[in-house]
Amino acid sequence: MDAARLHEYTDDMREGLTVEAIDRPEIDRSDHVLVEVEGAGWCQTDNHIIEGMWEQYVPQPLPMTLGHENAGEVVETGEEVQLVSEGDKVICHPVQTCGTCRPCRQGETMYCENQSFNGLTTDGGFADYLLTNERAVIPLPGDVDPIDIAPHADAGITAYHAAKKVVDELNPGDHAVIIGIGGLGHIGLQCVDAMSAAQITAVDLKDSALELADGYGADHLVNPSDDDLREVVDSVTDGTGAAQVMDFVGADVTTEYAPDITAAGGDHHIIGYGGHIHEPAQALVNGEFSFVGNIVGRYAELQELVSLVEQGEVDLHTSRYDLEEVNTVAEKLEHREIDGRAVITP
Amino acid sequence: MDAARLHEYTDDMREGLTVEAIDRPEIDRSDHVLVEVEGAGWCQTDNHIIEGMWEQYVPQPLPMTLGHENAGEVVETGEEVQLVSEGDKVICHPVQTCGTCRPCRQGETMYCENQSFNGLTTDGGFADYLLTNERAVIPLPGDVDPIDIAPHADAGITAYHAAKKVVDELNPGDHAVIIGIGGLGHIGLQCVDAMSAAQITAVDLKDSALELADGYGADHLVNPSDDDLREVVDSVTDGTGAAQVMDFVGADVTTEYAPDITAAGGDHHIIGYGGHIHEPAQALVNGEFSFVGNIVGRYAELQELVSLVEQGEVDLHTSRYDLEEVNTVAEKLEHREIDGRAVITP
Amino acid sequence: MDAARLHEYTDDMREGLTVEAIDRPEIDRSDHVLVEVEGAGWCQTDNHIIEGMWEQYVPQPLPMTLGHENAGEVVETGEEVQLVSEGDKVICHPVQTCGTCRPCRQGETMYCENQSFNGLTTDGGFADYLLTNERAVIPLPGDVDPIDIAPHADAGITAYHAAKKVVDELNPGDHAVIIGIGGLGHIGLQCVDAMSAAQITAVDLKDSALELADGYGADHLVNPSDDDLREVVDSVTDGTGAAQVMDFVGADVTTEYAPDITAAGGDHHIIGYGGHIHEPAQALVNGEFSFVGNIVGRYAELQELVSLVEQGEVDLHTSRYDLEEVNTVAEKLEHREIDGRAVITP
Amino acid sequence: MDAARLHEYTDDMREGLTVEAIDRPEIDRSDHVLVEVEGAGWCQTDNHIIEGMWEQYVPQPLPMTLGHENAGEVVETGEEVQLVSEGDKVICHPVQTCGTCRPCRQGETMYCENQSFNGLTTDGGFADYLLTNERAVIPLPGDVDPIDIAPHADAGITAYHAAKKVVDELNPGDHAVIIGIGGLGHIGLQCVDAMSAAQITAVDLKDSALELADGYGADHLVNPSDDDLREVVDSVTDGTGAAQVMDFVGADVTTEYAPDITAAGGDHHIIGYGGHIHEPAQALVNGEFSFVGNIVGRYAELQELVSLVEQGEVDLHTSRYDLEEVNTVAEKLEHREIDGRAVITP
Repeated sequence: MDAARLHEYTDDMREGLTVEAIDRPEIDRSDHVLVEVEGAGWCQTDNHIIEGMWEQYVPQPLPMTLGHENAGEVVETGEEVQLVSEGDKVICHPVQTCGTCRPCRQGETMYCENQSFNGLTTDGGFADYLLTNERAVIPLPGDVDPIDIAPHADAGITAYHAAKKVVDELNPGDHAVIIGIGGLGHIGLQCVDAMSAAQITAVDLKDSALELADGYGADHLVNPSDDDLREVVDSVTDGTGAAQVMDFVGADVTTEYAPDITAAGGDHHIIGYGGHIHEPAQALVNGEFSFVGNIVGRYAELQELVSLVEQGEVDLHTSRYDLEEVNTVAEKLEHREIDGRAVITP
Repeated sequence: MDAARLHEYTDDMREGLTVEAIDRPEIDRSDHVLVEVEGAGWCQTDNHIIEGMWEQYVPQPLPMTLGHENAGEVVETGEEVQLVSEGDKVICHPVQTCGTCRPCRQGETMYCENQSFNGLTTDGGFADYLLTNERAVIPLPGDVDPIDIAPHADAGITAYHAAKKVVDELNPGDHAVIIGIGGLGHIGLQCVDAMSAAQITAVDLKDSALELADGYGADHLVNPSDDDLREVVDSVTDGTGAAQVMDFVGADVTTEYAPDITAAGGDHHIIGYGGHIHEPAQALVNGEFSFVGNIVGRYAELQELVSLVEQGEVDLHTSRYDLEEVNTVAEKLEHREIDGRAVITP
Repeated sequence: MDAARLHEYTDDMREGLTVEAIDRPEIDRSDHVLVEVEGAGWCQTDNHIIEGMWEQYVPQPLPMTLGHENAGEVVETGEEVQLVSEGDKVICHPVQTCGTCRPCRQGETMYCENQSFNGLTTDGGFADYLLTNERAVIPLPGDVDPIDIAPHADAGITAYHAAKKVVDELNPGDHAVIIGIGGLGHIGLQCVDAMSAAQITAVDLKDSALELADGYGADHLVNPSDDDLREVVDSVTDGTGAAQVMDFVGADVTTEYAPDITAAGGDHHIIGYGGHIHEPAQALVNGEFSFVGNIVGRYAELQELVSLVEQGEVDLHTSRYDLEEVNTVAEKLEHREIDGRAVITP
Repeated sequence: MDAARLHEYTDDMREGLTVEAIDRPEIDRSDHVLVEVEGAGWCQTDNHIIEGMWEQYVPQPLPMTLGHENAGEVVETGEEVQLVSEGDKVICHPVQTCGTCRPCRQGETMYCENQSFNGLTTDGGFADYLLTNERAVIPLPGDVDPIDIAPHADAGITAYHAAKKVVDELNPGDHAVIIGIGGLGHIGLQCVDAMSAAQITAVDLKDSALELADGYGADHLVNPSDDDLREVVDSVTDGTGAAQVMDFVGADVTTEYAPDITAAGGDHHIIGYGGHIHEPAQALVNGEFSFVGNIVGRYAELQELVSLVEQGEVDLHTSRYDLEEVNTVAEKLEHREIDGRAVITP
């Protein structure tokens, strides 16, 4: 089969991955599931992996097939698999978990002590076939197209995971600020809108993104090139600040908004990771706000997101590319030229 | 009456406050309560106020009587006060709240939109008398000495407030790390011990503080001069990390422990504010930990802490000083020469 | 002024209240607020009070002016009132609280140890004027009509209070069953719809109520005269049951649905109180469900509900009546002939 | 091997089970674990199963080996088992779960859609060997004796599960009432004491049980034969009521305490199931209390309980019996003649 693989870290996206023929993976555990990949979303994290930005955080055996946002059709299963069978359409949570460590027992998919992460620590789905396991696949409702939903496997649940924490803290009359209405942000916005009755202020440097936000339920739109976000938040919240802030950028300039726009007792959620936090401890004490880290969502959260998609609550803008075009996609994303989410269709 | 007042910000603790005779405050609202101060705890924050460190965060009309950890006896009450009457012994929450703004209606004492903070934004209790209001006083059980309990009005509830968030997230078998076993830390440690069955690792640069911690229920003791905290936490938690970290120091060097010692999904609580947080956003994403800000506790939390004290669950080390000695106390604290908590007895 | 007063408990609604001239109440505390009543909702509980059904639960000094769902204009204030002033339009939370007891300090309006409940334990608002206090009034946004919003002061927040607990437990894909789409139920339905992405099954014996539910976001409609609720819930939830059930009827026949329609770990919320719970303890153990009691909502919840109304998320069907018609209204309600919520306009 | 098996439901405990020789179970799945049983606790539920009281709730293929509280040594494992290996000492959670249904993914062991429950729906551990799976076993710390800890596999985690919900709602100064200080109750009491700083009132008809409670941290002791529980609770809580009530009896007479002894917003936890709830819906509305169902605890909770036991926080009184004595044990328990928890040692 064909697969797009990383042989060496590089900053040059034009030659990040190599598309090459490798052996189709084999089922060799009772819980294995082999999926014929129909859609594989391309993520900013793929660029970061190519750059070597994840090397210090996780083990990465190179060469490795990238791709962690996959959906497709089950073509073979291990002998004890019950949840799915050949022919089922599935979306693949990117993490293959053990099911027996304590985090797994608590439902904490992402903290599994024996995990493999598709396209990050093991071969992923920019390939004709993906080998995963029973605990990582979710059967799709009949009317959901695997290609359309694929990016939800990572972009979607990451946004949903943070949105779920956010709506838990939002009452009617409260305000949420969403910074960065891109691939993840536009999903996060729709999730907050669907699951709360809060007022939402959307922030982006691109007016086209703000127009998108307007259609997805944002009550206020701010382009920091034109308006001072601090002043807008102060004004729309009568000086109270936003109860919850979702930062899909995570740059120095966005994290430093926190003490000025976050309400007392509120949270500034770090989802994007474009930079640093630099903040005096006294600011967190005085305003009693928190910087809350957010990782990819859990398996159960992906089930919930599939329900939202099925109910028509969350739209996803996608554009499709062939497997051979992976480096073009990476290059375009680097220059912010991707319209919506790019999905590779091997 | 005599009062210790700040006329000018200064870094020289030897001449921070001036003890002088001023008019005794007058009851002029229906909910006012006049308290004859018996004990007034001296806090690191008093030093910070003298240095001008709070000027940018809150309005401070100088000259102002400092002192926000007070307990004593009610000597006069406004005409509609029901909760206390003349002769009652009380501890005074440092914040006088309005009771009608939305935060007050939610029990969020510290977020009151019309608050006065004793010794920070209005005259405090390093004086013979303190004017406060009905919503700020808590009657003391008969056998509790106002002088002994006074520091709980700020040091105590700040530690308790953070401890309460911490124990909400701790299961038996989980680990908590407590950094800084000083005036607040030794209270926080006892609160966590009383309200959870977690394992506690106490961290301090002073061996005497660690001995104290040992007696208060710490399971592991670490002096970073001798041992690597990262290694100890890794070892005692089998590589999982501490579910909760209480940082009573808040220095650059302590906040940077977070990604290495905090478990996935855990919190690094900022309570002390001796420095900054400098952290890549990616660290918070990868480890899904949070930096959680902590302000002074609520009125209802001070009630709970009084219960703990009454039950004998929380000890407080105090040493007593006359009102004339305020600058000596400030100076000693600056050089870490105060044994336990200094209480001024006007 | 004129007031509709209860002199004696009776089961004959035709002569429940007496409209008579009494003295206009006087401001005699610093926090008093006198409101000229524009709208006063009539509630099923008013019928229950007339029948004497609340006598064993709370002290009721007769004669007493009934009416606990009031909105109108402030005409006079005590001398220390800051929140409102003459001319302000307000909605009145039915409970006047002290602000100093522990429940008040925790935001638990309904548990205030020194409370007065309008029209239940003290004179209410079926009268030209209502005497209440600063902690019970909420200023209305400019475009909200006091007559239209009045019933939210009790019917609304009771439904909202339960709905808020319910949505806290509902994830996308989960199911909620709402039993009784009447005066409270149709508000509860809209609140759940606005604040969650769950599937909703509405249950009522009247098809007209189900039509209303259909327009307010219900996904499934069940008239138990025609369909077996147990079978429908089993079918739409694939045998899992409803995560949350809101019972606005509270009759023997509705509470006994609980073990059959409530999912493991779920809640059957008791809001209506038309009958009893009779259930073997083993059923609660085996299904791990709970019967959850629900009282009137808090002041802060009424603020949130006003936000929902202002945002257009919650409709309220009302019909208007003169003060002289109170007994007619009571009689009609007894025979289920009131269309929407009756509002008295003194 | 020998096993104590139920062939027919009966009310005569003297002939409930038959000890007979059957085939030793065989490993036939990759995740199977075969345990040589060292200790198997006898539970009141075993009596109930013999009486046929569970027949209407779960499928029970007879004849069946009873016994759901087991600990022992692993003697064989399926080929993909990683968590344990031959020779490991383990305690066995009574439920064998699938790990792939949605409840499993949320950590809800007891709601597993494909579960087997030892000794209730499949062969249990009153036998020389128990066949279970990897997801049901927890390795024991080296110094914990399997015979001593066995009853925690059900009695322990059921009490712990409820205690954990209870302590989540208890602040210092709050009160908990624990009704029934028997096999489960004495564990629940110790758990609440270890994990909270609340005041505890223990209630039992046997003075010997109250003496036990006294040693385990109860602050007040009530024998309803001598004292009126309602009056005691009213007195020790200053009329507020108990924030949390744990009812390990669940009889008509104990559930009807709820409206009188439970504080507003509090919970009456149903753990024992000796009778019924009969309560007017209005009582739950007026007092806003809940009847909360409690099933056996989760796997992760059994891990936490093992930590408590290892730390010496929870004692368990046991007496040992041979497999041949099962009917004697059942008979004695029926007449309340078992001292502590009976453990069968096959």
